[in-house]
Amino acid sequence: MTTATLPAAPDTAYGRLVARFARLGALDDAIGTLDWDAQTMLPSGAADGRSAQLATLRVLRHEQLTAPEVEDLLDAAEADAASAAGILDAWAAANLREMRRLYRHAAAVPAELVEAASRANSACERAWRGARADDAFADVVPTLTEVVVCQRAVAAAKAAVFGIDPYDALLDGFEPSLTMATVTPLFDDLAVALPPLLDRVLAVQAAAPAPLSLEGPFPVAAQRALGEALMGRAGFDFARGRLDVSLHPFCGGAADDVRLTTRYDEADFTSSLMGILHETGHALYEQGLPTAWRHQPVGQARGMAMHESQSLIIEMQAGRSREFLTFLAPHLTAAFGGSGPAWEPTNLCRLYHRVGRGLIRVDADEISYPAHIILRTRLERALIDGALAPADLPAAWRDGMAELLGVTPPDDRSGCLQDIHWYCGAFGYFPTYTLGALVAAQLFAAAERDLPALPDALGDGDFGPLVGWLNRGVHALGSRLPAPEMVEAVTGATLGTAAFKRHLTRRYLGE
Amino acid sequence: MTTATLPAAPDTAYGRLVARFARLGALDDAIGTLDWDAQTMLPSGAADGRSAQLATLRVLRHEQLTAPEVEDLLDAAEADAASAAGILDAWAAANLREMRRLYRHAAAVPAELVEAASRANSACERAWRGARADDAFADVVPTLTEVVVCQRAVAAAKAAVFGIDPYDALLDGFEPSLTMATVTPLFDDLAVALPPLLDRVLAVQAAAPAPLSLEGPFPVAAQRALGEALMGRAGFDFARGRLDVSLHPFCGGAADDVRLTTRYDEADFTSSLMGILHETGHALYEQGLPTAWRHQPVGQARGMAMHESQSLIIEMQAGRSREFLTFLAPHLTAAFGGSGPAWEPTNLCRLYHRVGRGLIRVDADEISYPAHIILRTRLERALIDGALAPADLPAAWRDGMAELLGVTPPDDRSGCLQDIHWYCGAFGYFPTYTLGALVAAQLFAAAERDLPALPDALGDGDFGPLVGWLNRGVHALGSRLPAPEMVEAVTGATLGTAAFKRHLTRRYLGE
Repeated sequence: MTTATLPAAPDTAYGRLVARFARLGALDDAIGTLDWDAQTMLPSGAADGRSAQLATLRVLRHEQLTAPEVEDLLDAAEADAASAAGILDAWAAANLREMRRLYRHAAAVPAELVEAASRANSACERAWRGARADDAFADVVPTLTEVVVCQRAVAAAKAAVFGIDPYDALLDGFEPSLTMATVTPLFDDLAVALPPLLDRVLAVQAAAPAPLSLEGPFPVAAQRALGEALMGRAGFDFARGRLDVSLHPFCGGAADDVRLTTRYDEADFTSSLMGILHETGHALYEQGLPTAWRHQPVGQARGMAMHESQSLIIEMQAGRSREFLTFLAPHLTAAFGGSGPAWEPTNLCRLYHRVGRGLIRVDADEISYPAHIILRTRLERALIDGALAPADLPAAWRDGMAELLGVTPPDDRSGCLQDIHWYCGAFGYFPTYTLGALVAAQLFAAAERDLPALPDALGDGDFGPLVGWLNRGVHALGSRLPAPEMVEAVTGATLGTAAFKRHLTRRYLGE
Repeated sequence: MTTATLPAAPDTAYGRLVARFARLGALDDAIGTLDWDAQTMLPSGAADGRSAQLATLRVLRHEQLTAPEVEDLLDAAEADAASAAGILDAWAAANLREMRRLYRHAAAVPAELVEAASRANSACERAWRGARADDAFADVVPTLTEVVVCQRAVAAAKAAVFGIDPYDALLDGFEPSLTMATVTPLFDDLAVALPPLLDRVLAVQAAAPAPLSLEGPFPVAAQRALGEALMGRAGFDFARGRLDVSLHPFCGGAADDVRLTTRYDEADFTSSLMGILHETGHALYEQGLPTAWRHQPVGQARGMAMHESQSLIIEMQAGRSREFLTFLAPHLTAAFGGSGPAWEPTNLCRLYHRVGRGLIRVDADEISYPAHIILRTRLERALIDGALAPADLPAAWRDGMAELLGVTPPDDRSGCLQDIHWYCGAFGYFPTYTLGALVAAQLFAAAERDLPALPDALGDGDFGPLVGWLNRGVHALGSRLPAPEMVEAVTGATLGTAAFKRHLTRRYLGE
C-alpha cells in the first residue's frame, strides 16, 4: 500500500475539502502545542488566559468543520467519486471517508450541547480535584451528574445520526468503527482467563527471591541523558520533537513536532525510564505517519486503541523483554554508577516483571491492568445507559474491584476518584487501553514471526527492525483502514486475546 | 483616569463587537505564544509546520476582523454612540475608536495583496539570511524589489482610505497617529545636535582612564539568577510570565503570560544583564495594562514608540544610571565572585557609558543610535516614495553613514544587510526606536520632577516608585490616548528632543 501524493485538483469539491482540512490540521497543531505548553511551561497565573485561547481555537475549529459549505462539498465530492469519472484513488477515497466521519461527529451535536458539555466538564474537573484531595466523592456528584447528562445527550445525538448504540457512538469517537460487539467477547474472555493466571504468577513470584532494590539517588541529568539515548535508539527524531517534564506524562505537540514528557524521581529511575519508552512508542507512531498526507484526515493516526498499542509494543513488549533488559543493565550501571547483584539483568527483570493486586490503575502490571479497564468499561456503560446513577459509583466500584481483582479500596481516592477521565467528560476512552494491549501483543507476535532476528536485535538494544516493521504495517498507513482491518492485514488474524495471553504466560510463567 | 469595567450590553452592536474582539485577543495570545515557542523551543525540523500554524491563525484572525458584519456593527455602534442616548463612557468610546482603527488597517488592504505581501516577505527573509551570510546583496535584490512593490501598494491602499501620506500610513501601523510631520523636525534636530555632542563625549572619554575589563567566565546559572532577581526588583510578576533563552532577545507571549528572552555569553554578562532589564521594561508595560480591558483594543499597549520608551526608561534611564549601577556593583561581585577596581561602581559606569562610532545599530550607544535610525528612516521613506531603487541601497547606505556618523561600512553585511526589518516587509518601524528614546527621556525627567526621591530609590535598587509612576501615567492607560497626547498628559509638554539632549549631556559630560 504505497502512499500517493495529494492528487486533489484545487477546483474540485474534493480539492476544496483538502484545503479546508489542511487549515483544520494546522489548527489542531496549534491546539496541541498550546496544550503541551500549558502542561510544561505555563506560569501559574496564566491558566485562565490559556483556557480562553484554547476555547477560542476549538470554537473556530468547530465552525470551520461544521460550516454549511462543508456538507455541500462532501455531498458533491462523494457524488464525483461515485460517478463513472471515479476521480479518486484509494488513498483519496479513504481521505474523503475520514472527512465525512469527522464532519458527522462534529455536526451531530448541536452547538448548545457542545457548549453545555464543555462548561459541565470544566466545572466537574475543578470539583474533582478538590473532591479527590479531600476524599469527598459527594462533593463531585452534582457536577458529575451534569457531565453524565450531557454525555448521554451527546451519545444519543450521535447514535441517532450514525444509527448505532449510544455507547458505541462515544467509543467511535476514540477508536473509529470499534463497537462493543467486538469489545465485549474480548473483555469477557480476559475476565475469565486472567484471574487464575494472576494467582499462578503470584505463587511463582512468592516462591522466587524477592527483587533487590536499586539504591539512589539517581540525578535528573543522568536520567534525562539515558532517556534521550533510549529515545534515539528507538528511532525518535529529535529534529521533529522534544522531551520535557510535566506532572502527568503524555505525548502531544504537533505533526513534525512531537513533544513527549516525563516526570523524574531522584529516588527511583525505573518508572520514568519505562515511561519515556512508552511515550516514545506514541511518538514514533506520530513521526511515522505518511508525510504526503500531513494535515489531512487520512494522514492522522488511527484511534486511541491503535495509539496505545504503539506505546505498549515499545514499552511492554520490547522494552521490558528479557533481551532488552539484559542489554540495558550495563548502561544503567554506567549511567548511575551502580554495581552488585541488584544491577544484574536477572534482578532488573524481577523488578520490571513484578506483579501484584493493586488498587491504582496507572500503577498496575500488565496482568491485572485489564481488570481495572473491564470495571471502568462496565461502569461507564451503565452510566451512559442510565442503569447506574453517579451517586452510586463508589459502591459499584468497590463491588467490582472485589469481584475482578479481589481487593477493596479503603476510600474513594483510591477508588472511583482516581482517574480524571469521567470528570472531564471522556466516556468511551477506557476500553482503548486494554484493546491497545491486545493489539500490541498480536502485533509483536506477528513481528517475531516475520523477523526471526528480532530477539537478537533487542538484545543488542536495536529497535530498528521492530520499528521499521511497525512503520510499514501501521504508522505509514495513517487512517487508511479501520483498526480491526489494519490489525488483520498486518497480523493475518482477527483481533483476539490469544497473543496477549501467550505473551503473559511466556513472560511471567516461562511457558 | 480610572479604568471602568466592561460596560457592554451583549445585545448591542457595541457589545457584539466586544465579543468579536475578545476572540481576536485570544487569537493574538495564541499567535504570540506560538511565536515565542518558535524562537525558544522549536525543534529544527518543525519550522515549516509552525509557519503553517501561524499563517492559518493569521488568516483566521484577518477573516474574523474583516468579516462584513464587523463594518455593519461598527457603523451601528458609532451611530448609537453619537445619538442622544450616548451609551458609551470615555473608555468604551476609545475602545470603539480603536476597533475602527484596527478594522480600517485590516480592511484597507485587499486579500490578494495581503497574500502577495506575505509570500514576498517570506521569500525575501529567506534570501536575506543567505545574502547576509555571503555578503551578497545582489542575491536579495529580486525578492526585496518584490517586497517593496507590495509595501508600496499596501501604503497606497491605506493612504487612500485614511487620506494621508503613504509612508505615514505605514508608520500609523506601528505607532498610531504619529506622522512624519511630527517625526521630521525631531530627527532634524537630533541630526544637528548629536554629531558635535558625540565629538565632545569621545574627547572626554579619550582623556579619561579606559574602563577595566571584567574577567569571566560568568556561569549561565549565576547570570540567570541575577537577571531574575533584577526582574523581580523591577516588579516583574513571575506568576504571569517567564524568562527564557533565544538567539534574538525579545518580549512576547500573551496577556498575563509575558515571556521575555535573553542570550547568555559566559565571557561577558554585561549585555545580557542590561538586555534583561530592557525586555523587562517591555514586560512591565504588558503586565501593567488595564485588566478590565484585557483582550479589547483599548486595553492593548499603545504603539511601538511607546513600547520602546518603556524598555528604554528601565534599561537606559534607570538601569544605567550612576545610582543604580552603584547599587548593582556589590551584587555583581557577590554573583560572580569578582573583586578589585574593575568591579567598583566607577568602572562599571565607564563600561556601561562607553560611546563609539560603530557600524552596527544593535551595538550602538545611546548617543550614536539616533544616527542609525535617521539613516534608515530616510532610506525607507525613499524606497516607499519610489525615489530610491532597492538595487541602489548599498551606495545610499554608505553615503548616509559617512554623512551621519563619519564611518563607512567595509561590506554590506555590516551595512544595509544588517537588519531584518525591510527584508521581512517592516517599513515604518525604524523611527519608533528613536521616538522611544525621546519619550523615555521626557518621561524620566517628568518622573524625577514628580518623585524627588527617585535617585535615592534607584540607589537602593528600588524601581518601585518609577514603575508605579509609569503604571499610573502610561501602562494603565492602555490605548486610551494617542501616544503624543499621552506623553503630553503625563509630562506636561509636547514630545520634543530637549529632555533627551539634557539626559545625554548630563550622563556623558556631567553637565
